[in-house]
Amino acid sequence: MLGAIEAGGTKFVLAVGNHSGEILDKIVIPTEHPDKTVPKVIDYFKDKKIERLGLGGFGPIDINQDSPTYGQLQKTPKSDWVDYPLGAILQEKLAVSVVIDTDVNVAAMSEAKFGNATDVNSCLYITVGTGIGAGAYYHGQTLKGLSHPEMGHIKVRRHPEDTYKGACPYHDDCLEGLAAGPALEKRWGKKGDQLADLSQVWEMEAYYLAQALTNYIYILSPERIILGGGVMKQKQLFPLIRQNVIEMLNGYVSSPYLTKDKIDEYIVPPGLTDEAGIKGALHLVME
Amino acid sequence: MLGAIEAGGTKFVLAVGNHSGEILDKIVIPTEHPDKTVPKVIDYFKDKKIERLGLGGFGPIDINQDSPTYGQLQKTPKSDWVDYPLGAILQEKLAVSVVIDTDVNVAAMSEAKFGNATDVNSCLYITVGTGIGAGAYYHGQTLKGLSHPEMGHIKVRRHPEDTYKGACPYHDDCLEGLAAGPALEKRWGKKGDQLADLSQVWEMEAYYLAQALTNYIYILSPERIILGGGVMKQKQLFPLIRQNVIEMLNGYVSSPYLTKDKIDEYIVPPGLTDEAGIKGALHLVME
Repeated sequence: MLGAIEAGGTKFVLAVGNHSGEILDKIVIPTEHPDKTVPKVIDYFKDKKIERLGLGGFGPIDINQDSPTYGQLQKTPKSDWVDYPLGAILQEKLAVSVVIDTDVNVAAMSEAKFGNATDVNSCLYITVGTGIGAGAYYHGQTLKGLSHPEMGHIKVRRHPEDTYKGACPYHDDCLEGLAAGPALEKRWGKKGDQLADLSQVWEMEAYYLAQALTNYIYILSPERIILGGGVMKQKQLFPLIRQNVIEMLNGYVSSPYLTKDKIDEYIVPPGLTDEAGIKGALHLVME
Repeated sequence: MLGAIEAGGTKFVLAVGNHSGEILDKIVIPTEHPDKTVPKVIDYFKDKKIERLGLGGFGPIDINQDSPTYGQLQKTPKSDWVDYPLGAILQEKLAVSVVIDTDVNVAAMSEAKFGNATDVNSCLYITVGTGIGAGAYYHGQTLKGLSHPEMGHIKVRRHPEDTYKGACPYHDDCLEGLAAGPALEKRWGKKGDQLADLSQVWEMEAYYLAQALTNYIYILSPERIILGGGVMKQKQLFPLIRQNVIEMLNGYVSSPYLTKDKIDEYIVPPGLTDEAGIKGALHLVME
């Protein structure tokens, strides 16, 4: 039996599954102060006889297995969790090894194993919501190095008509500061779902997201890009983003998937919905 | 016996080596029209009894082993070589399997195996010269996907004092269009090595390169960054780039290597000089 945790900013999903990747039992608990949430986690797993535990978590979190602070939260906006040694505590209390990755890396892996990227060797998963985050899966591993990627914070060129200063507390007008949900709301005065009919909103949004995708393509060359998250529920964004990406690349990268004939198969929505995170977390400890 | 080729824009290095990675014999021939250069390559290898051949080549080149045009040059500025099926011809004429990667991917691998990144699991190698290219090495493999990365063509934010329109034939003012050697020369009217004393030249150059490095760190999170190529011979660029990277990241990524105490160990010059390309090409077919 294997354990899996999807640790999100609002809820924790806890599950046990088997070595074939099937979820056999699952519960959801709210994300509160660690002193309330973590005992519930331990309580859930303590009699389940799990051999290992996989965790996909919100970040920033130390995912370097060689680091003395492996599994420790870093300077997350959720202040109760800053520097909380989540991995070490679970490992100690449950006496099992814990494998930790970011929620977006785990989502990329899930899409590669079970979702919309099962036919390729690499994919990039991007979520555009309260923040912008991305994970990548290349040749059987999630991408990480010095730390985990923070792809939402790249610098982008400003849209010529955009006067909004940006919402990122660290960089003002990085990608997340200009294109995540809170930036949309502050720039236009309403939430995204109340702006659905205003074409200029989505043209500007697509300009920023396409610029990011273009940079990701130049740097990572993924075989598929999956775009999820609350903002991407505005489906009119997909054709605008695809068209902008083709224009920005300007034919420089040779691939049929970067032409108008096939880009619909290249930039796609997620194939998984509810179980992506928890199935990916289980997969972290499967082989 | 194994064969290795470093196929550059001005010269081809041809070598044979053993399974331990030692180069046993080596010659250099000029890069001319393929009808002149390729027969010399075949002539060199034909009696060497090589089992396999590794090739690190200038790009763009198809490095997808599953592609029907694997090893074919793409729309390179060297017009004699556009669409030339280099890999297929070598494979046919020499009757050996040929493994192909880009020159910069091979350089990244060489730095990881023998150079300035032997103590880490991932590194990024960037060359700033006639063009800007980069290769990455992660967990034992070079990074590739849909195609090979083209990291020099990312969009960057313009320096407020820069009025030069940019030199890239595809994108005008992408990174390469603003910061490669030809852009330096056209913007300032002299070659880089004649501008060594002009601080504004290198401050602007460092601004662009640091912006690129910051994006690479957010997207790839490499454990080391190696900066080579002709422009980086201006050693005054290193401290300027390091300082700009720290300022642009603004503390967002937690790592001692991204602070002024340790960034000298993180952004470094190459550890290998002459033999990096050819040793890396040999390494492609070693295991």
